[in-house]
Amino acid sequence: MGGTGMARWLEEIRWNADGLVPAIAQDAENGDVLMLAWMSRESLARTLEEGEAVYWSRSRGRLWKKGEQSGHVQRVAEIRLDCDADTVLLKVQQHGGIACHTGRRFCFYKRLEDGLWESVEPVLEDPENIYEGG
Amino acid sequence: MGGTGMARWLEEIRWNADGLVPAIAQDAENGDVLMLAWMSRESLARTLEEGEAVYWSRSRGRLWKKGEQSGHVQRVAEIRLDCDADTVLLKVQQHGGIACHTGRRFCFYKRLEDGLWESVEPVLEDPENIYEGG
Repeated sequence: MGGTGMARWLEEIRWNADGLVPAIAQDAENGDVLMLAWMSRESLARTLEEGEAVYWSRSRGRLWKKGEQSGHVQRVAEIRLDCDADTVLLKVQQHGGIACHTGRRFCFYKRLEDGLWESVEPVLEDPENIYEGG
Repeated sequence: MGGTGMARWLEEIRWNADGLVPAIAQDAENGDVLMLAWMSRESLARTLEEGEAVYWSRSRGRLWKKGEQSGHVQRVAEIRLDCDADTVLLKVQQHGGIACHTGRRFCFYKRLEDGLWESVEPVLEDPENIYEGG
């Protein structure tokens, strides 16, 4: 049965005290680091099943299908785990080319320059448009 | 004074209850995600000062200069922060081309294949050699 095997690979992950691990989403084509979010067992199992990233929203305390409002889903090409099994790396195709809720390509748009965090990536779409139906 | 500005950019980060944030190290040249570790205020301040990554080791409960034993230091080209200011991204030059304590190029060497975590990256150097002086 698939269920047994699935449980084992999930249990090999070292979930933290809250039952979560950080998950890095990386653009499968150009290598950009898009975002970091958190995953529970259920969110990672659903990610595998659906082939699209499902995270755990710590602020909302619920599963969060990436793109559920924005349409900016992440098609998962690979799921990787690190040496000490406490961080997941997803290689994804980012639908719409926008991973960040601010309308930027990725979330790491602030760069430290002379002691200030400078925004160095353009807003590709107004968040008001992205989330207008939300 | 530099100290004042430094305090402000550090305080703009949303440190967790333990005073830490996850920090992703990415190869500045080829975009590989090398590892995820954790940083405290002091480790990030020292990273900026030294131009080389200094993390906080949660297992050892102390500052951990990456490469202090292995020599595999990470020269920091850029420090980035994400939209909600709770994750740091370092773009680094990885000395020796090995970021992982297992002797691999990076830590995310296990790939999920048919319900199993398969090691899919070669060991470039025997960890016994890397850490023999440690």
